[in-house]
Amino acid sequence: MIAFISRRESFSSSHRVALPNLSDKENMKLFGACSNKNGHGHNYILEITIKGKVNPKTGYVIDLKEVKEIMHQNFLKYVDHKNLNLDVDFLKGINPTTENIAIACWNKLNPHFKKSAKLFSIKIFETDKNFVEYRGE
Amino acid sequence: MIAFISRRESFSSSHRVALPNLSDKENMKLFGACSNKNGHGHNYILEITIKGKVNPKTGYVIDLKEVKEIMHQNFLKYVDHKNLNLDVDFLKGINPTTENIAIACWNKLNPHFKKSAKLFSIKIFETDKNFVEYRGE
Amino acid sequence: MIAFISRRESFSSSHRVALPNLSDKENMKLFGACSNKNGHGHNYILEITIKGKVNPKTGYVIDLKEVKEIMHQNFLKYVDHKNLNLDVDFLKGINPTTENIAIACWNKLNPHFKKSAKLFSIKIFETDKNFVEYRGE
Amino acid sequence: MIAFISRRESFSSSHRVALPNLSDKENMKLFGACSNKNGHGHNYILEITIKGKVNPKTGYVIDLKEVKEIMHQNFLKYVDHKNLNLDVDFLKGINPTTENIAIACWNKLNPHFKKSAKLFSIKIFETDKNFVEYRGE
Amino acid sequence: MIAFISRRESFSSSHRVALPNLSDKENMKLFGACSNKNGHGHNYILEITIKGKVNPKTGYVIDLKEVKEIMHQNFLKYVDHKNLNLDVDFLKGINPTTENIAIACWNKLNPHFKKSAKLFSIKIFETDKNFVEYRGE
Amino acid sequence: MIAFISRRESFSSSHRVALPNLSDKENMKLFGACSNKNGHGHNYILEITIKGKVNPKTGYVIDLKEVKEIMHQNFLKYVDHKNLNLDVDFLKGINPTTENIAIACWNKLNPHFKKSAKLFSIKIFETDKNFVEYRGE
Repeated sequence: MIAFISRRESFSSSHRVALPNLSDKENMKLFGACSNKNGHGHNYILEITIKGKVNPKTGYVIDLKEVKEIMHQNFLKYVDHKNLNLDVDFLKGINPTTENIAIACWNKLNPHFKKSAKLFSIKIFETDKNFVEYRGE
Repeated sequence: MIAFISRRESFSSSHRVALPNLSDKENMKLFGACSNKNGHGHNYILEITIKGKVNPKTGYVIDLKEVKEIMHQNFLKYVDHKNLNLDVDFLKGINPTTENIAIACWNKLNPHFKKSAKLFSIKIFETDKNFVEYRGE
Repeated sequence: MIAFISRRESFSSSHRVALPNLSDKENMKLFGACSNKNGHGHNYILEITIKGKVNPKTGYVIDLKEVKEIMHQNFLKYVDHKNLNLDVDFLKGINPTTENIAIACWNKLNPHFKKSAKLFSIKIFETDKNFVEYRGE
Repeated sequence: MIAFISRRESFSSSHRVALPNLSDKENMKLFGACSNKNGHGHNYILEITIKGKVNPKTGYVIDLKEVKEIMHQNFLKYVDHKNLNLDVDFLKGINPTTENIAIACWNKLNPHFKKSAKLFSIKIFETDKNFVEYRGE
Repeated sequence: MIAFISRRESFSSSHRVALPNLSDKENMKLFGACSNKNGHGHNYILEITIKGKVNPKTGYVIDLKEVKEIMHQNFLKYVDHKNLNLDVDFLKGINPTTENIAIACWNKLNPHFKKSAKLFSIKIFETDKNFVEYRGE
Repeated sequence: MIAFISRRESFSSSHRVALPNLSDKENMKLFGACSNKNGHGHNYILEITIKGKVNPKTGYVIDLKEVKEIMHQNFLKYVDHKNLNLDVDFLKGINPTTENIAIACWNKLNPHFKKSAKLFSIKIFETDKNFVEYRGE
């Protein structure tokens, strides 16, 4: 039997949505208030979904303590209470849109899951009104 | 890389779930309190999901400002603070169940999206306990 | 020892904010979209707070089953799935603003509580962004 | 036209995640605080999704009153305000992980839906951070 | 300048609302499903409010890291993933109603706050519909 | 009859909690991750409460459209999508803790309310777990 198990964690980061080769004025035209020169910030929510067989002995797809550890060690500790443009190595040179954060998160977390309980989806909520899902495709 | 981007907006409307060719008594039997003659109402939430390639230059599937504009100009301005049975041209003659509102919303919004960032799903939450998803199928 | 115990319930109603002696145009000027002629609606939340001594034997201020019964029999059954302008006797001739709904609710519920566990506050949430509290003063 | 309709209900239960053939110490090692000998508890949320054709006459996939009745009669009344290890016949001998609760819920509810409006998904939220989805596969 | 600062944490516990000198039948009559013999459980939320002067140097009433430590060391670690009737020394012989949990929490936390930033209120949410506030009076 | 009416709005800002006369190391010791040199950010919620007589003619304490306008023109437009340390004139030289943001917000909004419907409370939620209330005392 196949089940999907999900875990939500939050992180509080600042960012500026902007392209380095554009002027402030051009960025403002393209990205609006999101490209404010000194940045702004969000309480992001990361929702990760794992798909796998329910282990008939334990009744788990995967132990969520293990999932939390993977999330923390490979993503959350690098982004929580950080500036996504300046402080995060794996986002260097990447415009930190919600789409790009979700893709970067997938790339950081995916190698740590096995075939038997594989990463199915990454959702990043920028606010409770805006969110992006990436499924590794 | 393909991502799904979603936006939530709310609207506050009144409606009556009823069939015009039935008596009040027959409607009450079929639809219960939802067919109260003078109507009732909800704070609906519309959650729209767009599927598309992440633009490698901007890092966007689509600019949410554009999505919000499409939602407002083609759906929200017609239903927010309105009576869904009496005030909305594109719902005329349609029983305003959550299912039918979701389908009507799809039909109003879908023409405004392109192949590169196409409408994937419409979710309408009637309350935080009842909701419907329609994917254009 | 004095504690405050609260219970939340929801109701789904339609209403029109308008004064009977004004024209539709004047009402629209005064109340905006809230005075739409055919009404609109909300999922209201009623949050009621009771203040009283904690009974040293039972550990209760009051049994919430009793509170729920009072809420249902004296208020919720009259307003849920109703039109607040047309269907509710105790709102007849009253402009159904959130303020007036809260006051009417207080007046309906207050006689059913005793001195030992008295009604302290009525909160009505019209949406998750707008709410009113009335404390009987 | 095919739509997905969902309903959320909650239930408050206690449980202990543990395997009967292991010692308390071994269970604590495998399941951590979730295997506390005297149990702990949650406000679970059950979110059920039905997939089906929208009936062109009524505008319903299925009447949610019917869905609520199926949920209550076949699952909720057995688990709400109960101990999942000791009080629930259909969980006897089953480790009450969220995965296993979701599967058991599917098995109890699925026979009561027809092909025209079939059970599509069971989601069980153990907390607002942990949840499992099962689709009968 | 005086401000109120609040912190929310959750804990997942089982309990049984019952009086030891009553039979199961009498408890069921008095407390209903809440006295189910084998218990049930909740995701409780503890919301604590501290009142004090804003320190003109730091801009803090109190450092929330300190508040979290007080909450964890003196209350949360004793109740989270525990059975409130059997596992918690400071609730021994106390009927674990929400009122009594709030009072016990106040008594455990209050000695750890100083006059300059004193405990103002303890709120315990049993569910998102039921909650109790205690202010030490 | 006196009622309290509240309105919630959100704003997304970056900030750094730090004292200008301290070194980065000293700030990190005093404020922890909140003093990360390049900042971090939040989706703040501003909840404002007005206390006043319910106008017997309109049924309003105050028109929420007016409240929203005051909130936007005097506070939200200066902080939303901004860096609270660098972009906001009325926070210049002020350590942007939640307490200080609440006080600054009170000072900006209070002059725009009248005695008949006066500002009663400013709540700022930094996250859904941390919030501060200021009542002008």
